[in-house]
Amino acid sequence: MHRVEHDLLGDKNVPADAYWGVHTARARENFPITGTAISAYPHLIEALASVKEAAARANADLGLLEPDVADAIRRACREIREGALHDQFVVDVIQGGAGTSTNMNANEVIANRALELLGHEKGDYARVHPNEHVNLGQSTNDAYPTAVNVATIIAVHELADAMVVLEQAFAAKAVEFHDLLKMGRTQLQDAVPMTLGQEFGTYAVMLGEDRLRLTEAVTLLHEINLGATAIGTGLNAAPGYAEAAVAHLREITGLPVVSAADLIEATQDCGAFVHLSGVLKRIAVKLSKSCNDLRLLSSGPRAGLNEINLPPVQAGSSIMPGKINPVIPEVVNQVAFEVIGNDVAVTMAAEAGQLQLNAFEPLILHSLSESITHLRSACLVLAERCVSGITANADVMRGYVENSIGLVTALNPSIGYAAATEIAKEALETGRGVAELVVEKGLLPAEELAKLLKPETLARLS
Amino acid sequence: MHRVEHDLLGDKNVPADAYWGVHTARARENFPITGTAISAYPHLIEALASVKEAAARANADLGLLEPDVADAIRRACREIREGALHDQFVVDVIQGGAGTSTNMNANEVIANRALELLGHEKGDYARVHPNEHVNLGQSTNDAYPTAVNVATIIAVHELADAMVVLEQAFAAKAVEFHDLLKMGRTQLQDAVPMTLGQEFGTYAVMLGEDRLRLTEAVTLLHEINLGATAIGTGLNAAPGYAEAAVAHLREITGLPVVSAADLIEATQDCGAFVHLSGVLKRIAVKLSKSCNDLRLLSSGPRAGLNEINLPPVQAGSSIMPGKINPVIPEVVNQVAFEVIGNDVAVTMAAEAGQLQLNAFEPLILHSLSESITHLRSACLVLAERCVSGITANADVMRGYVENSIGLVTALNPSIGYAAATEIAKEALETGRGVAELVVEKGLLPAEELAKLLKPETLARLS
Amino acid sequence: MHRVEHDLLGDKNVPADAYWGVHTARARENFPITGTAISAYPHLIEALASVKEAAARANADLGLLEPDVADAIRRACREIREGALHDQFVVDVIQGGAGTSTNMNANEVIANRALELLGHEKGDYARVHPNEHVNLGQSTNDAYPTAVNVATIIAVHELADAMVVLEQAFAAKAVEFHDLLKMGRTQLQDAVPMTLGQEFGTYAVMLGEDRLRLTEAVTLLHEINLGATAIGTGLNAAPGYAEAAVAHLREITGLPVVSAADLIEATQDCGAFVHLSGVLKRIAVKLSKSCNDLRLLSSGPRAGLNEINLPPVQAGSSIMPGKINPVIPEVVNQVAFEVIGNDVAVTMAAEAGQLQLNAFEPLILHSLSESITHLRSACLVLAERCVSGITANADVMRGYVENSIGLVTALNPSIGYAAATEIAKEALETGRGVAELVVEKGLLPAEELAKLLKPETLARLS
Amino acid sequence: MHRVEHDLLGDKNVPADAYWGVHTARARENFPITGTAISAYPHLIEALASVKEAAARANADLGLLEPDVADAIRRACREIREGALHDQFVVDVIQGGAGTSTNMNANEVIANRALELLGHEKGDYARVHPNEHVNLGQSTNDAYPTAVNVATIIAVHELADAMVVLEQAFAAKAVEFHDLLKMGRTQLQDAVPMTLGQEFGTYAVMLGEDRLRLTEAVTLLHEINLGATAIGTGLNAAPGYAEAAVAHLREITGLPVVSAADLIEATQDCGAFVHLSGVLKRIAVKLSKSCNDLRLLSSGPRAGLNEINLPPVQAGSSIMPGKINPVIPEVVNQVAFEVIGNDVAVTMAAEAGQLQLNAFEPLILHSLSESITHLRSACLVLAERCVSGITANADVMRGYVENSIGLVTALNPSIGYAAATEIAKEALETGRGVAELVVEKGLLPAEELAKLLKPETLARLS
Repeated sequence: MHRVEHDLLGDKNVPADAYWGVHTARARENFPITGTAISAYPHLIEALASVKEAAARANADLGLLEPDVADAIRRACREIREGALHDQFVVDVIQGGAGTSTNMNANEVIANRALELLGHEKGDYARVHPNEHVNLGQSTNDAYPTAVNVATIIAVHELADAMVVLEQAFAAKAVEFHDLLKMGRTQLQDAVPMTLGQEFGTYAVMLGEDRLRLTEAVTLLHEINLGATAIGTGLNAAPGYAEAAVAHLREITGLPVVSAADLIEATQDCGAFVHLSGVLKRIAVKLSKSCNDLRLLSSGPRAGLNEINLPPVQAGSSIMPGKINPVIPEVVNQVAFEVIGNDVAVTMAAEAGQLQLNAFEPLILHSLSESITHLRSACLVLAERCVSGITANADVMRGYVENSIGLVTALNPSIGYAAATEIAKEALETGRGVAELVVEKGLLPAEELAKLLKPETLARLS
Repeated sequence: MHRVEHDLLGDKNVPADAYWGVHTARARENFPITGTAISAYPHLIEALASVKEAAARANADLGLLEPDVADAIRRACREIREGALHDQFVVDVIQGGAGTSTNMNANEVIANRALELLGHEKGDYARVHPNEHVNLGQSTNDAYPTAVNVATIIAVHELADAMVVLEQAFAAKAVEFHDLLKMGRTQLQDAVPMTLGQEFGTYAVMLGEDRLRLTEAVTLLHEINLGATAIGTGLNAAPGYAEAAVAHLREITGLPVVSAADLIEATQDCGAFVHLSGVLKRIAVKLSKSCNDLRLLSSGPRAGLNEINLPPVQAGSSIMPGKINPVIPEVVNQVAFEVIGNDVAVTMAAEAGQLQLNAFEPLILHSLSESITHLRSACLVLAERCVSGITANADVMRGYVENSIGLVTALNPSIGYAAATEIAKEALETGRGVAELVVEKGLLPAEELAKLLKPETLARLS
Repeated sequence: MHRVEHDLLGDKNVPADAYWGVHTARARENFPITGTAISAYPHLIEALASVKEAAARANADLGLLEPDVADAIRRACREIREGALHDQFVVDVIQGGAGTSTNMNANEVIANRALELLGHEKGDYARVHPNEHVNLGQSTNDAYPTAVNVATIIAVHELADAMVVLEQAFAAKAVEFHDLLKMGRTQLQDAVPMTLGQEFGTYAVMLGEDRLRLTEAVTLLHEINLGATAIGTGLNAAPGYAEAAVAHLREITGLPVVSAADLIEATQDCGAFVHLSGVLKRIAVKLSKSCNDLRLLSSGPRAGLNEINLPPVQAGSSIMPGKINPVIPEVVNQVAFEVIGNDVAVTMAAEAGQLQLNAFEPLILHSLSESITHLRSACLVLAERCVSGITANADVMRGYVENSIGLVTALNPSIGYAAATEIAKEALETGRGVAELVVEKGLLPAEELAKLLKPETLARLS
Repeated sequence: MHRVEHDLLGDKNVPADAYWGVHTARARENFPITGTAISAYPHLIEALASVKEAAARANADLGLLEPDVADAIRRACREIREGALHDQFVVDVIQGGAGTSTNMNANEVIANRALELLGHEKGDYARVHPNEHVNLGQSTNDAYPTAVNVATIIAVHELADAMVVLEQAFAAKAVEFHDLLKMGRTQLQDAVPMTLGQEFGTYAVMLGEDRLRLTEAVTLLHEINLGATAIGTGLNAAPGYAEAAVAHLREITGLPVVSAADLIEATQDCGAFVHLSGVLKRIAVKLSKSCNDLRLLSSGPRAGLNEINLPPVQAGSSIMPGKINPVIPEVVNQVAFEVIGNDVAVTMAAEAGQLQLNAFEPLILHSLSESITHLRSACLVLAERCVSGITANADVMRGYVENSIGLVTALNPSIGYAAATEIAKEALETGRGVAELVVEKGLLPAEELAKLLKPETLARLS
């Protein structure tokens, strides 16, 4: 069963029950790339519905849409925002055409659902037309990027929430491990004492800073170009339309979106996406570094540092009985590498924009969506299945401190860098302790030495 | 309905009808990252089944597996290779643990299917055990990379076939456009004449060279480490097992796989993947460049170069009637950018390997799979929905040649670079033609000039 | 002629006239990588001197340095800040050791110059010691990153100034070209009319936005970790030292630097560098896109778009007389590609940091310095040798508009998207004009049509 | 003192003693980007001279150059190949114009030196003209890429030689450490025993494989496009010229260069550079991984793995006495990160090529040169200042093995994976040894156990 639709290229069959139409049908044939439909991005589908509803309201305000048509479009959009019809968004996530196929897919689904609501047949476009009514006053080039912005803002907020969860998990451990002395290490060589609480506090602080940058970056997306139409000159958008549509979108989404000051610039510019991608990469870099540390500190159990224990979450090996691996940090590392790769893809796509438009925004959206949602999952998994269950091997850590040559650093002010260097060298060569060598050589009385080398003092705990 | 299974961490419920078991169950909880299961990579699933069958055969040869168990494992593997049970491969494509969860998933599915074939209940592992029988003589660290190699080899062959299709499409156009004169351009400035056939021939040649590189790169994957077990020392693999398993795998897959000369090196090394990814990136670079050219040459129709016409495959705009966009080259560009980004992800994952293993091979597999399959789709779509339908605007192209200042280059040998420069300058400033200026200044007789400037000569057509 | 110096590894000859000493001598032998010495980064040398002076002042305030020694150190630092002795900074820009060799080089040069100022021989370290006096209260791990921050802030300010120059050049052209009508293009296909002034205005706006982001990013560098010493615990820095040193540094540099809230985090964190690098990449992306546009718009002169003329700055070809190439945009493109590559290097270096320190900060500094200074040169060259001399071919541009099919978009509200599509199709197939077809078909009266298609209206000029 | 030269843009002063002329003078003003002149790449300068000599010989063969002019050009080229006049190659390494300025610089220097040799004044171009004589039959677009190929081939050979040195250093250690038992580690967790010799052998094998790939990649550069002139059609090159020039170049350089089969393709294609860059990246990845391992294995000395000792090459800290850092591996890591970043720059430059030429080859050359020469330095430094001096802590390593839980893996065949898992779990929880637990539980007799757990057996040493 099918119905026949028509476009520039001629007639085409469309399944009778499909809410999408001829433009979507052609796009499906043109872009068999990933096999993943845009319905995989629910935030985007909902954002498209928000934009279309805002436009319909604005057009109704201006008397450009008949009230019943406008109302039917609004109802269709609201259903989609509430989760309906997502399976009708079928074009591939990687597509040519600067998002036109995604926009057309939305126009068609909304038009056909509006037709149904008005008691008409699907495809009866004389009554509600995907382009002339649903897309009224819009171009893909403003409607689509606006939807991408809205969807991305919401996804970023979810990521920020997940980062808070992870930050709190690290911060809780920083408190729990407040008193546990350990050796600090620089360049993987023993340095000077600190506490495990300080070490975990660092991860919390880093995440907090990253989150601030993310929050700043997302505000750049509040500037939208709705009303710009094809290239930013606003051709075919009625006077007053842009302001009205943006105001409605603000109300519908609850987000503080505003019109860009220069619509021509805003229509071609991908700067905010590149910026956001750079911040996501920054988050990835830090998460990866933190996970590298967790894997290193938990190395062993017998032939590694063995300072901390990650909670076992699955058997580690199909051959080595009892082996437990740091699988959660490892999966986070891999998400980080993916995000860093995606940043290069976003960069290339942005650089390839030409003249009045960037045709490669679908890939930018795809890469950003992947990066944001995977980072979010990674933060939650890391918090809940790893960090919150970490325990410390206090004795191992204290043993390293007491045995350390690095303690000699604290004696610089008393015996000088040169003498301290000689002590360090002898300790290394003989395997003896720093303290006994200092006393033996009469450089400092034992009592003063004990005071200077008190680990709590060295770690600035007291 | 569930059954209870047991591992290092204790008991765990598993759905009664699941072929996967406790290890897979834990992995699903641990890696809720992408929502995409490894069943999305059918080549990998089939390759895992091939590896497990090869191992079972080798173990049977050596008397380490009872004949009926070995036979049941083989039958289960064969079913999977024929497409069955793929939906039981449920762990996430991005996962920690160096592929252990994927390997465990395979071991469990095969064991349970083998149990069924032997008339036992799922989970009755005393009879057929995922680790002790299906994984016998193996570690994730040799079974998994071997399967990744096999799967990748097959995917690359499919890509190479698609490249042939595209190459032939370009080559056919090179023949079709053999006589069509046009201006060559360097740095986007008019240079000297050539033919459109020469231009399209270039794209075919480039693809052919890329394909040769791809074919070379994939041979590096023929070296496998089956038999290496945990770190390459072959611990727990019986004498003779490695040779037998590799021989069986060769027979099962029909691929010329061989044992790596140094199994310890092969177990930790990702060089062949990095190499392959670099070649995929090379292909992406060239495809993207070719698509950039197609978009440029077809720019217009009135305010662009307008030398060629891409076949219209969908309406180009939701607002601009009649607009046709180069959506097929655009989608290929985006695949290229994705592949280039993936190469960075592969690079980082490979660099992050430590000591005797690279824990990040799942991301390498994920990135390579995506790159290979998307490039394949892109080649086919570009060939079939774009290149094969391209037409040329011969008059436009000839007009550019006849009007060109670049023709003056051909006069260097007759009038010298300095005089030719003066002619070019005057032509540019006055808008006049090169030929008339040369004649007017008495630099060359008109007849000789006509001969020198004959476009066919200039393009070396004759 | 040499003097003998001593370190952990034993005695070593140092040229008698060298201000640098044994540590620098060893580093020169250890890092023969690029052949470029750190003197290539004058901002860094001056920043090191600023940090060392700030430390000396703080130590003098606290009575830890004798007044004459402190004074000699201050004088030596001031000389270096004024440009002296830069040739004594000889270690390679790419070096291991987390910047220790750079810090040691600074300590040694300052100590030896201070010795001279006090009337002593070079190498007489009992009087002024590189580590015990010049480096007093410091570690490489706080002194070096602080200097890197200071140097980078200054370099970024210079880049921002250059961006203003370029922004103004584009803005001036936007005014000059205010009335020049042209076709806007999306996806390289003719879209709807605009003005060349609008197009150039876009480049100015983009640069302005990038500059704002740069200004935000650099404020992250105001947080320094001076006083953190080895790992952030401040071991060996006297009470009150950190506050005093930061205050002195603020005064010396005139920059609003402040102590980081968490010195342990600040000592290991490279987030601000990754962030800055991301913003530099963003600038590169936009500059490259703008230059791509300039090259495209000036393509021709006869077989290209030929809408604008870039000022000729050199002969374009060694073989094609009169050929002028867009060499200035081309060099800017290449700087952009370099900056994007450097961002990946910075990313990898940042990700590779371990535990309490990132050992790879020298490469981060190297990459950032290169990116910042090359971008600065690129902006100035583009402004002065290209943009400011651009002229427009008004007739060519207007011809494209009048001849365009894209005009039909403006008729959507009057005749509908479907009818407009038919007109566009016929115009394309027949080569005829949109207006004549509309009139011929009686869709609109000629007078109304003329009003609707008035280019100035279409470009929203009036 | 200056002389006046003339070009398309008019007259220009050139320093009287400069061998370069007006084109170079303009280029210096146009590209003040890095401050580094192309003389920094001696291989390129010499390769340019080789190409120019080959062309002059070919032109002389064909009677197109007078013998004395041809001879003077040849002598000038030979002087340059022997190291003379390199300081006259003054244009910036990053330049617009597809290498035209570099080619012009070479043409001018050679012409002026030839004039001197013939007893004429510099600038007396009627006698020997940079374009009409030195550049005869050439375009930048064939002469420059050919020179880049030749220069790169030679640089790659030097890199390959350095890789052999490093490979041998690792291999020598593999022999030296042949008997030293240690724990293998996967995912930083204790796995099963191996020897330190096996571990070092791996690094040698990896390097050897990388070197093979490098050797393959460089053969792609043997295909040159000399004779292609502007776009590959060979316009203005006399019949027979291309073959003769290539033959002469083969003789002059001793390299097996051949004409590309399709000169139009070869003139625009950067595939071989992208490929080479990918292989350099692969080398970088492996070098970085190896250095990560060296830093990890030598971590400590007291709070790290402490299995090996890197030779101390400089004091590690300005504050921590006696600290020795792994500065040589660290500098190699940084070179690797730089190379990986450069690969992205090369990729972008290659992708940005348009139609008949890639205008961004100067950046490709710059990036490749940097990567190749820095990798070479890194290999030599790593071999000579680190690997060859590494010593092992045999007792530490053996202690790890004897204490290890991972030994239990070897018992799988005897007691089964499940029982072995229980033993491993108990050993971990109680801190007891695997062997005593197995005996205590009566799973195996002590004697058989001792045989199974003999480390030499486990590491497959015997």
